[in-house]
Amino acid sequence: MSEIKSLTAKIKKFRDERDWKQFHNHKDMALSLMLEAAEVLEHFQWKSVQEAESHAKECRDEIADELADVAMYLFELSDNLGIDLPRAIAGKMKKNAAKYPVAKARGKHTKYNKL
Amino acid sequence: MSEIKSLTAKIKKFRDERDWKQFHNHKDMALSLMLEAAEVLEHFQWKSVQEAESHAKECRDEIADELADVAMYLFELSDNLGIDLPRAIAGKMKKNAAKYPVAKARGKHTKYNKL
Amino acid sequence: MSEIKSLTAKIKKFRDERDWKQFHNHKDMALSLMLEAAEVLEHFQWKSVQEAESHAKECRDEIADELADVAMYLFELSDNLGIDLPRAIAGKMKKNAAKYPVAKARGKHTKYNKL
Amino acid sequence: MSEIKSLTAKIKKFRDERDWKQFHNHKDMALSLMLEAAEVLEHFQWKSVQEAESHAKECRDEIADELADVAMYLFELSDNLGIDLPRAIAGKMKKNAAKYPVAKARGKHTKYNKL
Repeated sequence: MSEIKSLTAKIKKFRDERDWKQFHNHKDMALSLMLEAAEVLEHFQWKSVQEAESHAKECRDEIADELADVAMYLFELSDNLGIDLPRAIAGKMKKNAAKYPVAKARGKHTKYNKL
Repeated sequence: MSEIKSLTAKIKKFRDERDWKQFHNHKDMALSLMLEAAEVLEHFQWKSVQEAESHAKECRDEIADELADVAMYLFELSDNLGIDLPRAIAGKMKKNAAKYPVAKARGKHTKYNKL
Repeated sequence: MSEIKSLTAKIKKFRDERDWKQFHNHKDMALSLMLEAAEVLEHFQWKSVQEAESHAKECRDEIADELADVAMYLFELSDNLGIDLPRAIAGKMKKNAAKYPVAKARGKHTKYNKL
Repeated sequence: MSEIKSLTAKIKKFRDERDWKQFHNHKDMALSLMLEAAEVLEHFQWKSVQEAESHAKECRDEIADELADVAMYLFELSDNLGIDLPRAIAGKMKKNAAKYPVAKARGKHTKYNKL
């Protein structure tokens, strides 16, 4: 089994032991994914880019916990939707490569529709 | 190389070909992770749980693209922070198991501090 | 002075007494607005529409605090940007009226670009 | 009628002409509030604090539209919940004054629980 599939299996086992599938509809899963991403971001609120760097070193374990929460919802939601995440990533990277050709996008953070 | 490490390597190659590392500070990466999670959630806005199910079937490819965006920021940010994601997940699942013991949490969506 | 202007003046006085203007750049203000909106939403995570109704009655004071946080960032950010909020609302409602004509939009939650 | 009450009345009239109250349950309103806050934040993604300032000047009308969307959901949701927003703000400012006494909080962006 691939690494992501194996992690997903553990996440689903945890969920099913608690009979939580009934709550894990797509809408609440997407909502929870976003709320966990908010908890990651909260670590960097009001901090300059430099302060964010040193905070990240100091609080790596707390941030790791928040990123793990994002990952768990992401892996389970993808699985619930029948989406193969590595394949989705490969597909999206192809699209991004077309939207952001190296020659045009190099060294710029401009959105593709304004490039 | 593990699956997540290998995906991360491709994501970083894409980034470095465009000289985008300069923009990918932790704060903007966390902010972007959240904005991509918002795009996933937007798919389910105003929809009932049932409508969300059928929408997800109809628009699976669009949602797969959004989840891929979340995954790409998540994998790169974790790597930038020196966080091993599978290990972080294992650690967080242990904590969650203690916060949500099966006997107490079964069939309930109550938060651990109110269980 | 209008009600919103008067509330905004109090919010800015609070900020300036603490010498916080230096942190209230537009990016961090927008980020904070979003994080406070996340705290409102967290109240409804995993809850059915019906559970959300009764939770809102029970926890009205907590939710009022979170909505106040959203309002304070919204009023201050608008002011910082030189945006007159009531005028912005009037302008946006005109646009929305054109995007969602009563005859087409009545009883539907479809987005304007799919109406 | 106060300014916020009068704006809220117009927002509700717009909603009711389209028979949209049926979709405006608390959960979807909170979710929409957050998605609109995300659209504000998106304006500042990848931008330095300085770039954010000049972008805000250039795109003031677009940002005004996004802030208006946040305000409209905020005012309607507060009204739906029976929350008087100016009173909620006054209450929250009192709490914040206790959490962030001037002498301790001046010139710092530290969270109250770490002050």
